[in-house]
Amino acid sequence: MTKQAKTAISPTRKEDYSEWYQQVIKASDLADRSPVRGCMVIKPWGYSLWENIVRELDDMFKATGVKNAYFPLFIPLSFLEKEAEHVEGFAKECAVVTHHRLEKGPNGGLIPAGELTEPLVVRPTSETIIGDSFSKWISSYRDLPMLINQWCNVVRWEMRTRIFLRTSEFLWQEGHTVHASAEDAIRRTELMLDIYTELAEKYLAMPVIKGRKTPAERFPGAVDTMCIEALMQDCKALQAGTSHFLGQNFAKASQIKFQSTEEKEEFAWTTSWGASTRLIGGVIMTHGDDDGIILPPRVASSHVVLMPIIRKSDEAASVMEFTHSLAKELRETRYNHRPVRVEIDERDIGGARGWDWIKKGIPIRVEIGPKDIAANSVFVARRDKDHREKVSLKREQFVKELSAMLDDIQNNLFVRASEFRNEHTIRIDDKKAFYKYFTPKNAEKSEIHGGFALSHWCGSQDCEARVKEDLSVTIRCIPLDSEAETGVCAYCGKPSRQRVLWAKAY
Amino acid sequence: MTKQAKTAISPTRKEDYSEWYQQVIKASDLADRSPVRGCMVIKPWGYSLWENIVRELDDMFKATGVKNAYFPLFIPLSFLEKEAEHVEGFAKECAVVTHHRLEKGPNGGLIPAGELTEPLVVRPTSETIIGDSFSKWISSYRDLPMLINQWCNVVRWEMRTRIFLRTSEFLWQEGHTVHASAEDAIRRTELMLDIYTELAEKYLAMPVIKGRKTPAERFPGAVDTMCIEALMQDCKALQAGTSHFLGQNFAKASQIKFQSTEEKEEFAWTTSWGASTRLIGGVIMTHGDDDGIILPPRVASSHVVLMPIIRKSDEAASVMEFTHSLAKELRETRYNHRPVRVEIDERDIGGARGWDWIKKGIPIRVEIGPKDIAANSVFVARRDKDHREKVSLKREQFVKELSAMLDDIQNNLFVRASEFRNEHTIRIDDKKAFYKYFTPKNAEKSEIHGGFALSHWCGSQDCEARVKEDLSVTIRCIPLDSEAETGVCAYCGKPSRQRVLWAKAY
Repeated sequence: MTKQAKTAISPTRKEDYSEWYQQVIKASDLADRSPVRGCMVIKPWGYSLWENIVRELDDMFKATGVKNAYFPLFIPLSFLEKEAEHVEGFAKECAVVTHHRLEKGPNGGLIPAGELTEPLVVRPTSETIIGDSFSKWISSYRDLPMLINQWCNVVRWEMRTRIFLRTSEFLWQEGHTVHASAEDAIRRTELMLDIYTELAEKYLAMPVIKGRKTPAERFPGAVDTMCIEALMQDCKALQAGTSHFLGQNFAKASQIKFQSTEEKEEFAWTTSWGASTRLIGGVIMTHGDDDGIILPPRVASSHVVLMPIIRKSDEAASVMEFTHSLAKELRETRYNHRPVRVEIDERDIGGARGWDWIKKGIPIRVEIGPKDIAANSVFVARRDKDHREKVSLKREQFVKELSAMLDDIQNNLFVRASEFRNEHTIRIDDKKAFYKYFTPKNAEKSEIHGGFALSHWCGSQDCEARVKEDLSVTIRCIPLDSEAETGVCAYCGKPSRQRVLWAKAY
Repeated sequence: MTKQAKTAISPTRKEDYSEWYQQVIKASDLADRSPVRGCMVIKPWGYSLWENIVRELDDMFKATGVKNAYFPLFIPLSFLEKEAEHVEGFAKECAVVTHHRLEKGPNGGLIPAGELTEPLVVRPTSETIIGDSFSKWISSYRDLPMLINQWCNVVRWEMRTRIFLRTSEFLWQEGHTVHASAEDAIRRTELMLDIYTELAEKYLAMPVIKGRKTPAERFPGAVDTMCIEALMQDCKALQAGTSHFLGQNFAKASQIKFQSTEEKEEFAWTTSWGASTRLIGGVIMTHGDDDGIILPPRVASSHVVLMPIIRKSDEAASVMEFTHSLAKELRETRYNHRPVRVEIDERDIGGARGWDWIKKGIPIRVEIGPKDIAANSVFVARRDKDHREKVSLKREQFVKELSAMLDDIQNNLFVRASEFRNEHTIRIDDKKAFYKYFTPKNAEKSEIHGGFALSHWCGSQDCEARVKEDLSVTIRCIPLDSEAETGVCAYCGKPSRQRVLWAKAY
């Protein structure tokens, strides 16, 4: 038997997936726990990944006419209560501000003072406070559509938290639009889902299935919730973006009315849509391996690290000069319309240096030693290949081909993830097989959670609830591309007209 | 007597400066009040101004090695208490989260529930929570300097608020750095002040005076606070950015220690520095006139508006084609390294259209009618000139000269503001003259608040406090370029070795 190669991350995915996830975040320097319950610290390497996601998404939004704005962090309790389902959905996880100053208490320590007349909720989402502005800004059909987005932090007091995937505070964008007709609002809901799909597949190299939620899984207060669902390597699903058609529910709650072309006063139709720092968790769990994270080049915190190798001190000057001139040359080139991002790591720490960058998932590592310089070449390794696989390339050739190499990595990651997803998406027509599929495969810590199952569903919320209770499996979505097909519900055996997508989910 | 020209903003600056300020914000569509006490809504036109400021500042920070990160919104009360002066300074204006959910109360309405064991303060600034991370991340001199910045929202519960200038919630950046020596930390404090100065003068066209605060005006917990001070058109000063040398105060409070090159464990030296959406208020009050805001081109929400003029329907197609092709051509050019930002306004609302853009302060307005197209020219107006002054330019020439024209506007605004500032900065050596200077000049609503006074100060906090009590005038800073000069304190007549900068302030 060959000895198992030692991995940079311990435990491996197989040994304990959920602990592997925590260890990858630590080893890759993406984020840290904080002393505030459920809140994370996003470290520079993780934050710059987020900045790149923000930049791409923001450009896509603006290209469709969306404008950014900023609304208050606090929502008066009475606003949240305006939409009954909405407040019901968020009441259990609200951080509430009740006082506006601190004063010396009886024991000498500070205590909250200056009680507010009306408690303020730290926004879990902003439909109601933004709706209030919309009701003032909109008076005529000429003001529509109104297309607004906000980049901000939100707070949902989660009891069980996991960095990036479920934290009490997270960063996100929330788009809010207002339209004169249901058709326009639905079109916008679909358009934004398309943008999330493009972000996920073209930038994060994360294949997704587009669909709509069942009534039980809708956003509180929405008429229709559309979503994209990705499959992680432990075969659990991750909801990676949602787009809601809100009908006139929030327009009625917030009195968003307009004078129509026929000069009648009507309630408007609204949408909202969001994507968050949770996407970073998705990137980790889609592409990460037992050596750390693998960053998709298009959003990678950085593209290339240059590692000068200096063995004798008299070589230092020439090696560093070559390194800096190469960095400068690379930074003047572009990859996917953005300047190439280059790191220089001069640390003299031996092999640990290369491993640091493997764990951090940088797409390309470059070693530069005196011999390379003599040959005017560089020694190149790619994060999507075995870490021992390194090729010597002429400097010129490397500079010229870098962009294509990054595209190749981007593409490889997407193909790999798609293959995995396809391998773990099966059609199941039999209840026993369905239950077996979703029953953990082994008793070890790292459970394999089945995958995606395309199975028939009769439409009953009761079947949906029972499957959830038995297996913690939910309907992730009714895929948009699902064809009409007669069959029988995998749970109750009653007639069904289409397959839906089932999985355990984060 | 000639009839006073009608202005777009009423009242004028002379009639009621503070009401003029509110009206400019409304007319220019920069921001709105919100139903949450003291919190503002930043509308798209205002937010894009902020986005441009953010982009410039962020690039400048990164060029000095600073990296962005993100820390929790909430600060445990016990953290804030770690630095005595610090908590003392912020205790009176803290929003405090005490509960983490809502439940039905006795009257059927929702009430806060799930009381937290320890109250959480919504960050008014983040020294203590970031310090906690630093204490974990730093162990050796090799980890230093650590240069971190965060773009975020902060909350300071102000009793008297004014949009942009003083709001309960505002957006800002807060930089936090850690160094191995006091010298390094002081150098960083000065470097960041230089960056704020560059932003203010080169981008916002707002001349500033660099200096240090007196002990009474320092940031709570700082050893030294450096600042830039600008003069608004009502002759009140605006603090436009601060950079603090924190000594070892916060390192001791948060236990930020490192192993020195001599292998001794030492407390580190830290800095913090911030600039906020308050800068937008500064732009309004520095450049605004009685027709609205005037945006400095380098940060303007948009550079040019194209206004097609269509009188007969058969002209529409050719006018719109010309307009869109010109917009496309302009967007492909660059101003100050960024793509030119172009608006097209097709609204058929007569003269109100041009006035809308005057009020919004766009640097350049362009009218395009059939006659212009026949001559292959455009009709151009600049916001820094009289609104009636319009010139016809050949299309080619306009495209070619646009960037220079924007630079000329940028420069004009700076020169104009510098002249105003210089005219209202005087040396006063006599107590009576000092008091007269700062006594409002008329009984009308629009007071002229004196201006900057360069007067001698003996160094006594008592004199400083008395002047503040009598006149609401404070020492804005001890200017960095003030020369040693013997004199006598403008208040008490005791010997003084330098002049300091006095003014009423926002």
